[in-house]
Amino acid sequence: MGKDESIVEPFANLTLPEKEALRKTLREQYARVCEKKLKLNMARGKPGKEQLDLVSGILTVLSEPADCVDEDLDVRNYGNLSGLPSAKRLFAEILDCKPEQCFIGGSASLQLMYDLIAKAYTHGLRHSPRPWSREPQVKWLCPAPGYDRHFGVSRSFGMELITVPMTAEGPDMDLVEELVKDPAVKGMWCVPKYSNPQGIVYSERTIARIAALRPAAPDFALMWDNAYCVHEVYGAYLPFPDIIRLCAQAGNPDMVYEFASTSKITFPGAGISVMACSEENQAYLQGLLKFQIISYDKVNQLRHVRFLRDKAHTIEVMQMHAKVLAPKFSCVTETLKREIGPLGLATWENPKGGYFVSVNTLPGLAKRTLELCAGAGVTMTAAGATYPYGKDPADSNIRIAPSYPALEELEQAMEIFCLCLKLAALEK
Amino acid sequence: MGKDESIVEPFANLTLPEKEALRKTLREQYARVCEKKLKLNMARGKPGKEQLDLVSGILTVLSEPADCVDEDLDVRNYGNLSGLPSAKRLFAEILDCKPEQCFIGGSASLQLMYDLIAKAYTHGLRHSPRPWSREPQVKWLCPAPGYDRHFGVSRSFGMELITVPMTAEGPDMDLVEELVKDPAVKGMWCVPKYSNPQGIVYSERTIARIAALRPAAPDFALMWDNAYCVHEVYGAYLPFPDIIRLCAQAGNPDMVYEFASTSKITFPGAGISVMACSEENQAYLQGLLKFQIISYDKVNQLRHVRFLRDKAHTIEVMQMHAKVLAPKFSCVTETLKREIGPLGLATWENPKGGYFVSVNTLPGLAKRTLELCAGAGVTMTAAGATYPYGKDPADSNIRIAPSYPALEELEQAMEIFCLCLKLAALEK
Repeated sequence: MGKDESIVEPFANLTLPEKEALRKTLREQYARVCEKKLKLNMARGKPGKEQLDLVSGILTVLSEPADCVDEDLDVRNYGNLSGLPSAKRLFAEILDCKPEQCFIGGSASLQLMYDLIAKAYTHGLRHSPRPWSREPQVKWLCPAPGYDRHFGVSRSFGMELITVPMTAEGPDMDLVEELVKDPAVKGMWCVPKYSNPQGIVYSERTIARIAALRPAAPDFALMWDNAYCVHEVYGAYLPFPDIIRLCAQAGNPDMVYEFASTSKITFPGAGISVMACSEENQAYLQGLLKFQIISYDKVNQLRHVRFLRDKAHTIEVMQMHAKVLAPKFSCVTETLKREIGPLGLATWENPKGGYFVSVNTLPGLAKRTLELCAGAGVTMTAAGATYPYGKDPADSNIRIAPSYPALEELEQAMEIFCLCLKLAALEK
Repeated sequence: MGKDESIVEPFANLTLPEKEALRKTLREQYARVCEKKLKLNMARGKPGKEQLDLVSGILTVLSEPADCVDEDLDVRNYGNLSGLPSAKRLFAEILDCKPEQCFIGGSASLQLMYDLIAKAYTHGLRHSPRPWSREPQVKWLCPAPGYDRHFGVSRSFGMELITVPMTAEGPDMDLVEELVKDPAVKGMWCVPKYSNPQGIVYSERTIARIAALRPAAPDFALMWDNAYCVHEVYGAYLPFPDIIRLCAQAGNPDMVYEFASTSKITFPGAGISVMACSEENQAYLQGLLKFQIISYDKVNQLRHVRFLRDKAHTIEVMQMHAKVLAPKFSCVTETLKREIGPLGLATWENPKGGYFVSVNTLPGLAKRTLELCAGAGVTMTAAGATYPYGKDPADSNIRIAPSYPALEELEQAMEIFCLCLKLAALEK
C-alpha cells in the first residue's frame, strides 16, 4: 500500500467531493488488498513462534527420573494438593507475597478464577452467608474496557455486569466506592498491571483505595488478575505492590484473590498458574479443592521451577520476550501515528507492557472497521468484546494484539487496519 | 515374624485360655514390630518408583520446537478447547468410542468428574429442568464398597448418598432399577472394569441393564469412571464394551459420561484425562467449558500421543506395569491365604486387574485392625472409606493398595496387617 499524501489532513476539514474522491481511492486500495486473500491474525494475545522457540529449553529440563525429585519429593507421583513448595516460592517471589499464600494450579489461571467463582456459587466463599446460587442476584464490577474472558465468566454465571469506566490510573474509584455499598455487588475484575486491553498500570493511590474498600457484601471478591506481572515490553521490570498485604493492612485480609500464570512466560496453555490469597482463604478453599483434585501437574511445576529458577531469571526471560515484542508494539503505534494520527479518527494508548494496544475510534466506527478488516483477511477481537455483554456503548474500542503475527505480517495487517478505519470513517 | 503353627486353626474353635495365650504371643510380636518404627504405606493407589521409571521416556519425547507440531498445529500455543485431535483418537481407540465424543482434560479425570457435577449444580446438564442447586434434594447412587473420592465429590455438594450393594457382577441392578424411579436420584458412580476396591468386572448383563435404565430424572448422569480400562494385572487385555454406544442403542444417548486418564499409565497426577459422551452432550458442555479454559495442556497431550502411540502400544506399556504389579498383588493374596485363610477371619477378592485388593473381615474388625496397623507404622486407607459417609455398616471392608511399597516392604506390611487382624479378632 503506497503512501497517500492527500489524506494527511483531518477528515473533518474535507469537502464532500474531496471525501468522495478519497473514498473511491481507498475503496480501490481495499479491493486490491482483498484480492490478496491474506490471513492475518491480531485477535488474541498469543505469543508468536519466535517467542515459543525462545523458551523451548523448558522441554528438556526434566529428562530422566533423577531430575524429577524436588526436595525429596518424586513429582511424578500423586500428592501435594496445593502444589510444589518450590513452585510456591517462585510465584511468591514474583508476586512479592508469601509461599503459604500460594496455590499452584494447572495450565490456566482462567480456570482458577472460574473455579473460585464456581465454588462461590456452589459452596460460598469463606465469609459468604450462603452460596451465591441462593442469592436473589449477584452483581459484578467490570472496569471497561476490560478482558472479554473475565466478563464471559461472570456472564456464564448469570451475574449482572456493571461497567466501571477506566481512568488513566485504573478503575474510576469514586464510582467503585459508591457501587460496593450495594450488598448484591459481590466482586470486581482487575488487571492491575498493564491492564487488558489498555496497558494501564493502576496508580498507587488507586490500589490503596481498592485495598481499603468497605464493601457491603462480606464475601466481596477482588479478582486481582496479575496476568502481566513481569510482562514489560519497553524498559526494565516495574515493581508492583503486593495487594494481599495491602488488603490485610487495610483490614480486608480475605477480600483479595490474586492470579498469575506462566502462559506468556513459557508456553501459553501449557504452563502453570497460581492463586494467591490469605492463608485463611487457602485453608477454606483447599478444604473444598481436595474433593476436586489430588494436585495439579507437579512435573510441569518442577519444569517451570528449574527453567525459570527465580524472579531475577524470570525477568531475564521476559526481557528476551520484550526484544521480540517491542518492535511489534512499535509497529502498531507508529503505523497508527503515521496513518491515523493526523486524521483525528482515533486515539490510542502507548503501553509499556502487557499484550495489547487499545484504540478508541471516533464513536460508531469500531464495528464497521473490523468488518472491513475481516473482509480483507485480518482477524481482530470482535468490536465490543472489551465491554460487558460485548456491547461498547460508543462502538469505539478496538483491541489490537500485535504478538502473534511475524513483524512483516503485522506491518501488512496494520496498514490494512488503518485503511479500513479510514474507509469506515468516510462511509459515515 | 516367624510362622506360628498353633494359629492354623479357626479362632472360633479355640478355648478361652488358648485364645488368651495366643493373644499374649501376638501382642508380644506386635510390640516388637512397633519398636522397628516402620513407615509403610498401603493407603493409596500410587504406582511405585519402578513403574514411574518404566515410563519416564515420556519426559523426552518432545525435546525441541519441531517436535511440538502435531498435524500443522503448534501445541505450544493457545487453542483447541476440546484437545488435540490425535489425543482424542488415542482415547477413542482405547475406550472403543468416537474421537468426536472425547474431551481431553488435564492431569486428573477426577477434576473432569467434579467439574461435570459442579456444572450440573450451577448451570444444569443438557436435559436438566433447572440447575441442581435449585433442586430441593439431589440423591446419588453409590455402589459400595466403592471409591472414596467419588463419594467425597457427592458429599461435597451435599447430595444424599444411597448405598447400592455390589454383587460379583457389579451393582445390585434390581435395587438400582427401583431407585432410579425417584426423580431426585440424579446419577450413579460406576467403576465398571476392575472396580475400586474389589476389582470386579461388571458383567455384560449388568452393563446392558445399566444402559437400559429408565430413570425418572431426565438428567440422570451415569458417571462411568473407566479408570482401569487397560489396567490388567494378570493376563492379556480384557476387551470391554463401549458404554456410550450401548446407552445410545438403549435410547439413552445422553445419559452417560465416561472418564479415563493416563494417571496409572504414565505419571499419576501429571498425565492427561478424557471425558467421553455423546456429541450432543459435548456441544452443550463445551458451550459452558469455553468460559473456563482455553484448552488443557496440549504439550502434555502430545507427549502422551507420541509416547503411547496407539491402543496396542498402550497395552504393551500396561503389560510392563503388570510385570511389576503382579508379584505385589500375589504377595497380598498369598499372605492373606496363608495367614488369614485358615482362621476364617476374612474373605477377599482375587482381582485380575485394577489397583486394589478388597478384604472383608468378620464384622466389627476393620477399624480396630487399621488402628493397630497405624500403631505399627503401616498406613492404610481409613476403615469405612469405601462406603458412603465413610461409614461401613459392618465395619468390615478394608482396601489394600499394594502398588506403592517395594516388594520387600509390602511383604513386611502384609505380615503386620495379618498380625493386626488376628489381634483385633482376639480382642473381641
